Amino acid sequence: MAIKSAEEYIESIKQQDPKVYLGGKRVEDLFKNPTTKSVIDATAKIYELAMDPAFEATMTAQSHLINEKVSRSLHVNRGIEDLRKRADMALLTAQKVGTCNYRCVGCDAITTLASVTWEMDRDLSTDYNKRFNEYLKYLQKNDLACSGAMTDAKGDRTKRPVEQNDPDVYIHVSERKKDGIVVRGAKVNQSGAIAANQTIVIPGQALREGEEDFAVAFAVPNGAEGITYISQYTPYTAERDAAEDIHELGNPIYGQRETSLIVFDDVFVPWDKVFMCGEVKYTRQLVARFAKIHRMNCGGACKVGFADLLIGATQLLVEYAGLEKVPQVREKITDMVTLSETARACTLAAAVEGAEEPKGSGVFLPDDMFGNVAKVNIANGFWEMMKIAGDLAGGLVVTMPSERELKNPETRDYMEKFFRTTVPAEKRMRITKFLQHWIAGQHGPGTWHGAGPVQAQRVMVSRLADLEGKKKLAKELAGLKEEELDS
Amino acid sequence: MAIKSAEEYIESIKQQDPKVYLGGKRVEDLFKNPTTKSVIDATAKIYELAMDPAFEATMTAQSHLINEKVSRSLHVNRGIEDLRKRADMALLTAQKVGTCNYRCVGCDAITTLASVTWEMDRDLSTDYNKRFNEYLKYLQKNDLACSGAMTDAKGDRTKRPVEQNDPDVYIHVSERKKDGIVVRGAKVNQSGAIAANQTIVIPGQALREGEEDFAVAFAVPNGAEGITYISQYTPYTAERDAAEDIHELGNPIYGQRETSLIVFDDVFVPWDKVFMCGEVKYTRQLVARFAKIHRMNCGGACKVGFADLLIGATQLLVEYAGLEKVPQVREKITDMVTLSETARACTLAAAVEGAEEPKGSGVFLPDDMFGNVAKVNIANGFWEMMKIAGDLAGGLVVTMPSERELKNPETRDYMEKFFRTTVPAEKRMRITKFLQHWIAGQHGPGTWHGAGPVQAQRVMVSRLADLEGKKKLAKELAGLKEEELDS
Amino acid sequence: MAIKSAEEYIESIKQQDPKVYLGGKRVEDLFKNPTTKSVIDATAKIYELAMDPAFEATMTAQSHLINEKVSRSLHVNRGIEDLRKRADMALLTAQKVGTCNYRCVGCDAITTLASVTWEMDRDLSTDYNKRFNEYLKYLQKNDLACSGAMTDAKGDRTKRPVEQNDPDVYIHVSERKKDGIVVRGAKVNQSGAIAANQTIVIPGQALREGEEDFAVAFAVPNGAEGITYISQYTPYTAERDAAEDIHELGNPIYGQRETSLIVFDDVFVPWDKVFMCGEVKYTRQLVARFAKIHRMNCGGACKVGFADLLIGATQLLVEYAGLEKVPQVREKITDMVTLSETARACTLAAAVEGAEEPKGSGVFLPDDMFGNVAKVNIANGFWEMMKIAGDLAGGLVVTMPSERELKNPETRDYMEKFFRTTVPAEKRMRITKFLQHWIAGQHGPGTWHGAGPVQAQRVMVSRLADLEGKKKLAKELAGLKEEELDS
Amino acid sequence: MAIKSAEEYIESIKQQDPKVYLGGKRVEDLFKNPTTKSVIDATAKIYELAMDPAFEATMTAQSHLINEKVSRSLHVNRGIEDLRKRADMALLTAQKVGTCNYRCVGCDAITTLASVTWEMDRDLSTDYNKRFNEYLKYLQKNDLACSGAMTDAKGDRTKRPVEQNDPDVYIHVSERKKDGIVVRGAKVNQSGAIAANQTIVIPGQALREGEEDFAVAFAVPNGAEGITYISQYTPYTAERDAAEDIHELGNPIYGQRETSLIVFDDVFVPWDKVFMCGEVKYTRQLVARFAKIHRMNCGGACKVGFADLLIGATQLLVEYAGLEKVPQVREKITDMVTLSETARACTLAAAVEGAEEPKGSGVFLPDDMFGNVAKVNIANGFWEMMKIAGDLAGGLVVTMPSERELKNPETRDYMEKFFRTTVPAEKRMRITKFLQHWIAGQHGPGTWHGAGPVQAQRVMVSRLADLEGKKKLAKELAGLKEEELDS
Repeated sequence: MAIKSAEEYIESIKQQDPKVYLGGKRVEDLFKNPTTKSVIDATAKIYELAMDPAFEATMTAQSHLINEKVSRSLHVNRGIEDLRKRADMALLTAQKVGTCNYRCVGCDAITTLASVTWEMDRDLSTDYNKRFNEYLKYLQKNDLACSGAMTDAKGDRTKRPVEQNDPDVYIHVSERKKDGIVVRGAKVNQSGAIAANQTIVIPGQALREGEEDFAVAFAVPNGAEGITYISQYTPYTAERDAAEDIHELGNPIYGQRETSLIVFDDVFVPWDKVFMCGEVKYTRQLVARFAKIHRMNCGGACKVGFADLLIGATQLLVEYAGLEKVPQVREKITDMVTLSETARACTLAAAVEGAEEPKGSGVFLPDDMFGNVAKVNIANGFWEMMKIAGDLAGGLVVTMPSERELKNPETRDYMEKFFRTTVPAEKRMRITKFLQHWIAGQHGPGTWHGAGPVQAQRVMVSRLADLEGKKKLAKELAGLKEEELDS
Repeated sequence: MAIKSAEEYIESIKQQDPKVYLGGKRVEDLFKNPTTKSVIDATAKIYELAMDPAFEATMTAQSHLINEKVSRSLHVNRGIEDLRKRADMALLTAQKVGTCNYRCVGCDAITTLASVTWEMDRDLSTDYNKRFNEYLKYLQKNDLACSGAMTDAKGDRTKRPVEQNDPDVYIHVSERKKDGIVVRGAKVNQSGAIAANQTIVIPGQALREGEEDFAVAFAVPNGAEGITYISQYTPYTAERDAAEDIHELGNPIYGQRETSLIVFDDVFVPWDKVFMCGEVKYTRQLVARFAKIHRMNCGGACKVGFADLLIGATQLLVEYAGLEKVPQVREKITDMVTLSETARACTLAAAVEGAEEPKGSGVFLPDDMFGNVAKVNIANGFWEMMKIAGDLAGGLVVTMPSERELKNPETRDYMEKFFRTTVPAEKRMRITKFLQHWIAGQHGPGTWHGAGPVQAQRVMVSRLADLEGKKKLAKELAGLKEEELDS
Repeated sequence: MAIKSAEEYIESIKQQDPKVYLGGKRVEDLFKNPTTKSVIDATAKIYELAMDPAFEATMTAQSHLINEKVSRSLHVNRGIEDLRKRADMALLTAQKVGTCNYRCVGCDAITTLASVTWEMDRDLSTDYNKRFNEYLKYLQKNDLACSGAMTDAKGDRTKRPVEQNDPDVYIHVSERKKDGIVVRGAKVNQSGAIAANQTIVIPGQALREGEEDFAVAFAVPNGAEGITYISQYTPYTAERDAAEDIHELGNPIYGQRETSLIVFDDVFVPWDKVFMCGEVKYTRQLVARFAKIHRMNCGGACKVGFADLLIGATQLLVEYAGLEKVPQVREKITDMVTLSETARACTLAAAVEGAEEPKGSGVFLPDDMFGNVAKVNIANGFWEMMKIAGDLAGGLVVTMPSERELKNPETRDYMEKFFRTTVPAEKRMRITKFLQHWIAGQHGPGTWHGAGPVQAQRVMVSRLADLEGKKKLAKELAGLKEEELDS
Repeated sequence: MAIKSAEEYIESIKQQDPKVYLGGKRVEDLFKNPTTKSVIDATAKIYELAMDPAFEATMTAQSHLINEKVSRSLHVNRGIEDLRKRADMALLTAQKVGTCNYRCVGCDAITTLASVTWEMDRDLSTDYNKRFNEYLKYLQKNDLACSGAMTDAKGDRTKRPVEQNDPDVYIHVSERKKDGIVVRGAKVNQSGAIAANQTIVIPGQALREGEEDFAVAFAVPNGAEGITYISQYTPYTAERDAAEDIHELGNPIYGQRETSLIVFDDVFVPWDKVFMCGEVKYTRQLVARFAKIHRMNCGGACKVGFADLLIGATQLLVEYAGLEKVPQVREKITDMVTLSETARACTLAAAVEGAEEPKGSGVFLPDDMFGNVAKVNIANGFWEMMKIAGDLAGGLVVTMPSERELKNPETRDYMEKFFRTTVPAEKRMRITKFLQHWIAGQHGPGTWHGAGPVQAQRVMVSRLADLEGKKKLAKELAGLKEEELDS
């Protein structure tokens, strides 16, 4: 059976022993550290949703490889309907975990490699696509949690990979062996690999001739020899560490998006898990296609799910204060909804204008312009929504005492007396804390840089704009003379 | 043959003699007054496009009533594909005439009445839908130019129609006769009726019991007895009047959007042209459905066509100044494209999420949320694009001497010398004048109020937002206690 | 007596006969052409205000040269109080004429030359300052209307003046004679020289070695031999031409800001009117100082006066519609006020932080940062205010019939009936027309580019920002190690 | 000597033993808890700055009561120059501690009470002003740290104080005794009282007849009997608790703005510390005058100091990435500077347009319009700056591992290798952490609600706007008939 339960997933994680560092110390047991546990819990929830009949259509798909229902997180988009469902999944999981679906990047890497390996095989008579399909069947049959890694450490940004003092700041092949390759380097900002079964690694930027060693795509099992994960540490990590009860926290179970620096210190990868090795010419489309699909999902759809949570919590606090009919308040809620629906529209447009790429591959990718525009809108819109939510929520969103004060007999009565509004103090404090998590934490920059910074999307919008067509339309109407229309 | 040529349309207009006032005087011949002529020319262009094989799929459709290819301007939307094509038509005609497709409001009124009359007949056993279909067959068979009129004069905005000192500020039935009704009142801001063959009139707002006389929808031929058109007069009207050569003007042939106040001074309408008469209960959906479809087309799609012209002209001036590679300039062009593509995405989303309404009617309407959001985005975006265009175009866009100075031997050499950049003065002046038309004229407020002011769309967004659903999602994640989740 | 009446000014204009072209024809009598007359009327109003006891303190000043009260338009700023009053004057005149005070650029050129000529004499032992003071005494004693001209035609923007195919696209000295110089070239976008007595011409950009011929500042009487004025022609020009009664127009008496291309076709200037000739090294500060003071006045102060008119008219229309208590409407009016007051604050800050420049010169200039920021804020804010005004005014602002329809007996009753709200149609139409002038015309790009385009101000803000100081503050607080604080 | 050293201040704090709760537990020693210690350290720094000759003019003033130099934090503004210096102090302290100057609210409460008590004595022949001056002399002579408390708990926002189920949600007099009063209730969002020597308490809103018990202003020593402080607890509190070395933190020494709920559970206040008791009529101006001065300082000036830190850190990270010459990057930095300078200009304008209020009192307050506009601009601008900073800083600002990883021998080499750019990893990490503190924490909502939420300022802007004057200007220019000008 190709759909695993949350319990089965958790069991699989227990078998793994990755080398994870957090807050300056090795994490001995991912289930005991509350932060690494939140990543496992969030991933488990994704499995749970796939088993839920209410969400089955969104969370699963019919595989074109193994003729079974599989997790949509492991499915290649084979048509417009798949693209719409893929975006729906991103929206749903965001609503349900309020953090990363940690299988999301892996999922989009799968569609990307399905497209690019097919193209390489067609052009170069390689067998990357065959290898990749075998690997994908393995993932699907075992419903493995697969994460993705893309962004290199980069070192000096003004230099190319080959020009760096230390070549390790970009992942590269350090040795080619008969049975596989050895890779060195690191990926930063990686979400969820610590709690995945597998990680797909792809290049983070288009490469040129002479940079063949850096043109490498492959898969590794979690915690393969030579891999070290050094996890992010933020105030929210400390708060989770210190919590006596997770309900003191803003997003109690699933927490913040957790990422790691993944170090590859001479990691061996057998050939059947290598999906690109030296074909610099194909790195441009690999990166572009990944961006195309990931911007629709991570950029447009997922953040709309977050926006739902943000809007919902703000509306609750407005109601708790008895202000829901004040016209100015309604106008601001309307602003939030407009921003969110705009991004949702862009995402939908990206899906329905999707197309097979390359022709004949059977792989579908969303429309590039709309995917990029979705991301630009939500990145700006999310900050705007944070601002409005902070306005309507009141200063308490950043000045609230701990919920523990409600349990302390010396302070409980004061807390209940002074934080009550039209609802009891505890209810108000829970939602206020939830909103703190969204607007006084990592989500602004997180939304901005997820799926690439906005400037990257703007460059794409600029490239994709048909300025020549628009110039021609203007000239025609402006009544330029015949001979001037084409000059 | 149900598709008429531009020449045939023009011939039909020559047969009409409406009572039109402009600038304080009766217009004796619509073909001689340069402003009324621009309306005819724009409408003729719409006919021409339908004959052009390149645009046939967009501009025509297969009628479900007469089994012939008809103008899409007279076609009822019967499915998602129709909605997409309807939006495509709005985009295309905007690009090609740079002003209203004056058949646009009539077109959307047709789909609206197809839906509402069907519903009334179903519920009330009236025969409005039958009458309407007969009328529509007549329009389709003769490919008549049909305009639409909606906005009443309104008088004192704080009062209902029945409370006004003068009931004529809302169109109403003043007499019911055996063979028809007599209507009185006026519609304002009406686009293009003077150059149409027919005009469909519908209520401008939802009505209540006691306001039955105001719940009236009907069609009249252009210039029916009792109708007077008093046309807008702006600086652009004066400029067109004064032009020695239309190429001195910004949008030489098609001009600005021209509207009139249409006065109905006891106009008789036979029953077979009456499509609602007293059914106040159905006015709400009539207005809502019209808004739904018109905001997608006029709001989202048409203005994206205008944006193409605006962007194209701006890019031309940037190139004429040699500045197209300056990063800040490219960023600003990118801003314009992003704003425009955002509205296009919302429009597309509105179309693909369309649905049959009412079920069984066979009539399809776009998604309401996305249509409204499209309009909100473009209304704000258009002002922003105007600002950017004005920035990049330079001050000359509002300080340029007349093109006549190029013909005057006393000034010609100076003009050619001092207005030349990398292109000759004339070329630069033509495009500058074209852009003046877009950013130093009527388009800001026009875009804002077309298809209803933005505040009307915001009210709809507020109503359509599923705040309860969002609150529930937030509560679940925030970890409210079981019993609090539903309270 | 150094303060002239409006009548005396008008008399002086009658003595002049400049060569003015407008709409392709020579203007034979500036008093008969309604557009050129509007420039004279606006300038006359400036004289009238100086005579009005209510405005005397703002409009006049005590000369440091002739020991008399003179027009502030001819006064050198000699202290902080002068700077505040100078800004007050810009605000007042904008409120009172709703268009350029056509003496404004000349006024700021006077303070600029007072500063730069003093510096040149100090450094180079020239006698420019002495000459300039003599000239200024002459202006003051005769209270002459003095305009200013700065922006060259520029030709190919990617080339320096000396690299142009045609050197005339920048004003330059074509011949040096014993008794004076001969200048060639043209200035564009010049406001009001046609109705001035004198025009001061200064370089439009910083110049380099090798460009000495272009480093020229001088004064010419209106209509000096060799000068031709080719005036702007916009839809508003045509409308004014066509008006039967100026009250049909938006700004009936004073109209739009009118500019001309001024051609200098070998104009002779005697040495005593030459204030710079070849000193390229001083062009940078000349341009910078002019920008500094003009951005405060034209950018910040004047546009706040316009904003007052825009806000006032919008509020009137809101009241005429009975909507002044609607919360959303009040919020939007508040937005307009906030934008306007922000610019006013920046202007005031620029004045009070002004300083003597150069030290010892006795000439005061405003703070550069605040002046530039004032302009940036109002340029963006003006577009925003236009958008809001257009929202609140309703579509009629661009669809209104001519006021002539109120006089035509065939349409009058309809007009009165259908355009009446809580006030009679005429009143509503007058204010609507007034607002059309502000938001559906030239003011968006005009405000943007007046006193230089916003990009120029942004470059200055960037240069003036003390990033080193801010970096140091950040390092200190961030706890960088001692040795890192300075690196 | 009226200026105390930091050491003397710290000594005074050691003598106090307030009842402070934090994170669910009593804080036994404020010097040992790292969060409460950060408040003491920040306050000590304010004392230190007053001793620093470089800042003496800003941080101290000549008392009008004791004829000595005193801390400006205890000085009544007696003129325009005082207002400018007061704003300078707010800017300086913000730059130097990057958190609240915890003496700021107390300082503005002092000027407010100086004004209002003078007015009450004048009108009512009370002796509040005399009492207040005696109290102020005591503060000045001993250079006491004095905080202020204003915002009540408020309970159900739709009800007045007297209508609440529990009157304690607003501070009020519960008993009047011969020697003083007893007060009950709580103030929320209070900054810094735990580390002050004294706290001044004033009403949080205008009160009406019948609400006399709530019209109470008074002073209490820190930790007076009956007072309990329940402090805010945020992720940043947890992080500080968990830090092994404060240099792991974003603002190592001074931390986040720390606030408490202060509970007054029947606290006795002797009459000589009571400055208002029942005079509801004077609460409106008390609140309005406090807002007026505090919005200038906390709203405009202080946040400009924060902006300096934000801009400085962003520029550092840009330079560390080698991107400082990229035009788009420079444009964004310019946006930040423009936003910051705009608020600075509004603050300066508020100070220089200040006035004595009431006349004769000798107390000066800033201009109300500009103070409010300053706050509105910076509240919106701060979110915008946070967005830009997050853009330029890169995703690492929210994904960075702990600095402890640099000390852990198992991870150190990886950290140094992969987080190095053009500077060593540690330097980059320090500044990144510093920026995290600003843009991924409490500062967005904190800035918004400090000195009152933006909506409160907008209401003031609306009230202060001279719409009648603007309407009159518009009517005059629009050419309304004589009789219509005044109607």
